[in-house]
Amino acid sequence: MDNPANPITVTAFRWVPHKARGLVRDLRVRWALEEAGLPYRSKLIGPADQASAEYRAWQPFGQVPAYEQDGIILFESGAIVLHIAEQSDALMPADAAGRARVRTWLFAALNSIEPWVQQLAGIDLFHSGEAWAEQHRPQVEDFVKRRLGALADWLGDRDYLEDRYTAADLLMVTVLDNLRHTDLLAQYPTLQAYAERCHARPAYRKALHDQLADFVPDPVAA
Amino acid sequence: MDNPANPITVTAFRWVPHKARGLVRDLRVRWALEEAGLPYRSKLIGPADQASAEYRAWQPFGQVPAYEQDGIILFESGAIVLHIAEQSDALMPADAAGRARVRTWLFAALNSIEPWVQQLAGIDLFHSGEAWAEQHRPQVEDFVKRRLGALADWLGDRDYLEDRYTAADLLMVTVLDNLRHTDLLAQYPTLQAYAERCHARPAYRKALHDQLADFVPDPVAA
Repeated sequence: MDNPANPITVTAFRWVPHKARGLVRDLRVRWALEEAGLPYRSKLIGPADQASAEYRAWQPFGQVPAYEQDGIILFESGAIVLHIAEQSDALMPADAAGRARVRTWLFAALNSIEPWVQQLAGIDLFHSGEAWAEQHRPQVEDFVKRRLGALADWLGDRDYLEDRYTAADLLMVTVLDNLRHTDLLAQYPTLQAYAERCHARPAYRKALHDQLADFVPDPVAA
Repeated sequence: MDNPANPITVTAFRWVPHKARGLVRDLRVRWALEEAGLPYRSKLIGPADQASAEYRAWQPFGQVPAYEQDGIILFESGAIVLHIAEQSDALMPADAAGRARVRTWLFAALNSIEPWVQQLAGIDLFHSGEAWAEQHRPQVEDFVKRRLGALADWLGDRDYLEDRYTAADLLMVTVLDNLRHTDLLAQYPTLQAYAERCHARPAYRKALHDQLADFVPDPVAA
């Protein structure tokens, strides 16, 4: 809840390469907090913090984002977004069946779609040119396309995954964003329009602006 | 809730190869239902069902498990296990902070650990001998080991992820089960003991028995 005396804290990276900006997962949490109208402060960390025992006690895998407020200590972007959504009409309907559907799509985004999208992005952004990556990429792309096709079929002429905008759309679109270096989304006009619809939200723009504004300047060569 | 007039339905596969038995994800839901003491019936499906428009309207990606009861229509093993857990003291504590921790670990199991474990299992079970797989495997194994090491560090001398057994342990152990064809878990005695502790639960044994009993006999060569 909004408590100025003990604001929400979200961890984020102090610096990442440009190809990762707008993709780091604290963006999901910032976006959810903007939709819910909850103020927060970012706590910026770097590689030394990630490896520290102190941070590992908070985030056992050394990743961002982690979250803290009033004794609620969380990690995993999916869990944090769900936690925020449960406090806000802006991100979830009130009825039990509708809330269960939102949780279903949160897990679908992170467990049925993201692992494949992430594999493709990993190949393209970090292993480009390696022999295994060249050989394996078509299999991964094929699998990503099967998932995208099924998602586009589901959406059909819906504007959102369910009958209104929810936290699940927020998370799904940040998963699809990992394909921004490819033309894959453009091959599914339904998905392209869906992503644009979500990106047009003021809360997304504010969250993205604030993530980008937090990065320190690029290091200069000595 | 337990409603004999409208029991819970969970979809599962009619047949899978032996190497996949005990790993198909309806096991997670069966296990959670056994812990919660909720009766259910399995609805067995095959490839034709998976591709059908009728099933895709229920499970957009054609996977198992899907879940239905009294107008609650869900998919994604993580979301279904969470839904069951929210109805049962056996799977979640009552306090808000404790419940948020369980959700955190559910997402950690499925989004921070499973994608890597699944990649390794995919290479070993479905791509063994392919050149890209041989080349890439050490990188994937290294990543899996970093995650297992972090998880073992977190567990330390805890019996469970948090201070009691919860739905998160159930899900985490079914993720680790995907390494059963390797000796990786044995390299982390903490994790090995943790998995054995969870597997010893009567609810796990019943769920596994019932998944295995549902498979039809292997097809015979014509």
